[in-house]
Amino acid sequence: MPLPIAVLVSGGGSNLQSIIDRIEQGALDAEIRLVISNKAGAYGIERARKHGIPTLVLSHKDYPNREAFDKAMVDAMHKHGVTAPEGAVIMAGFMRIVTPVLLDAFPGRVINIHPALLPSFPGIHGQGDAADYGVKISGCTVHFVDEKMDHGPVIIQAAVPVNAGEDGGHLGPRILKLEHRIFPQAIQWLAENRLQVDGRHVHLKVGPERQVDQPMADVEPPVHALVWPPLEEGF
Amino acid sequence: MPLPIAVLVSGGGSNLQSIIDRIEQGALDAEIRLVISNKAGAYGIERARKHGIPTLVLSHKDYPNREAFDKAMVDAMHKHGVTAPEGAVIMAGFMRIVTPVLLDAFPGRVINIHPALLPSFPGIHGQGDAADYGVKISGCTVHFVDEKMDHGPVIIQAAVPVNAGEDGGHLGPRILKLEHRIFPQAIQWLAENRLQVDGRHVHLKVGPERQVDQPMADVEPPVHALVWPPLEEGF
Repeated sequence: MPLPIAVLVSGGGSNLQSIIDRIEQGALDAEIRLVISNKAGAYGIERARKHGIPTLVLSHKDYPNREAFDKAMVDAMHKHGVTAPEGAVIMAGFMRIVTPVLLDAFPGRVINIHPALLPSFPGIHGQGDAADYGVKISGCTVHFVDEKMDHGPVIIQAAVPVNAGEDGGHLGPRILKLEHRIFPQAIQWLAENRLQVDGRHVHLKVGPERQVDQPMADVEPPVHALVWPPLEEGF
Repeated sequence: MPLPIAVLVSGGGSNLQSIIDRIEQGALDAEIRLVISNKAGAYGIERARKHGIPTLVLSHKDYPNREAFDKAMVDAMHKHGVTAPEGAVIMAGFMRIVTPVLLDAFPGRVINIHPALLPSFPGIHGQGDAADYGVKISGCTVHFVDEKMDHGPVIIQAAVPVNAGEDGGHLGPRILKLEHRIFPQAIQWLAENRLQVDGRHVHLKVGPERQVDQPMADVEPPVHALVWPPLEEGF
């Protein structure tokens, strides 16, 4: 059975689109049972509708506190067949901190994507904060969600170059391209039950006919390293 | 004239060795006028002697405060012909925080290497802290030094994969290989006067017959990105 998932969005939903695309391409063995947005005009809702996926807008402003809002989301997910322990909750640009009400309803089954190489630049301006800091490498992170923002065990990361003086608006799209690749991959690993969490460490179990997370100590740089700015001749 | 540098070490000095090697290979246009260690037994001192480089051991314990210790280092560097604005101070595993006494003597000419992708994991256990956190990508950073530890403007960074469950002792050598490549490169850019600092942003100016720090927005992922664990088929 495909992994039953609910996708939570707050905005444009391009990560939602990448998940839909990978499912339709047959690479991602999941079924989106419900897309929830906390904002009425979120284009993510429109994307879901175009693909015949059930949608729900729940404004957090209609609830007295975070817990009540999370309870309403959990009830909706349950109603649509997304339940623990099989179901999973995918936060795809969902700009709300979730509470134990949601986390306890889906233990170890809530994942998030963040547009920075955590633990650098958590929060809602990951791309801009990285650009402002002047890092030469930034990226994105898919992680299990815990009660702290952008904090849980890391599943996969991607690193990209940052150029001196560029702003978050320029860096963001480059990171987003990688988000669209690593997020569906992480969900597929979840669907295959290949993610084993040991404290803060997420081990990727061997998959049938798939690559293995091997020790890399002997691998020489250029292949498995990203250096920015690029090394010049002689270095 | 080759860039006159003083190299500060506290330990094994393998980064010092990489600088010596690149100078001897003719790739790095610098001359090490003095190697200073704050620890008597540091193997870095032995490495310098083997290459006929003047050395000095100054124990910080012999000085009443950081400023007095820095003053002694500055005096020694001046005596050996490392002076502003041409000279530069290279912190290569130097485990002391420096003060304005040293920084003001070499404005914009003090650089450091750190074994993590700053601003993640500053401090003296960069490799172990990254491994413990469970990141999938870590690396190293060369940066200008300011009064805050591991904080100044970033010159170059390198990212490497981290495997689930490995410790700092396993990750460290993989990062160190990249340190040995990016640190001499950064010093060469300094020697060529190609580093232009604008606030926190370090611009790499075009070099004769060398690559340029180009906007990368149009570059497609696999070439200029590092993803870990690796993407599998279909992603």
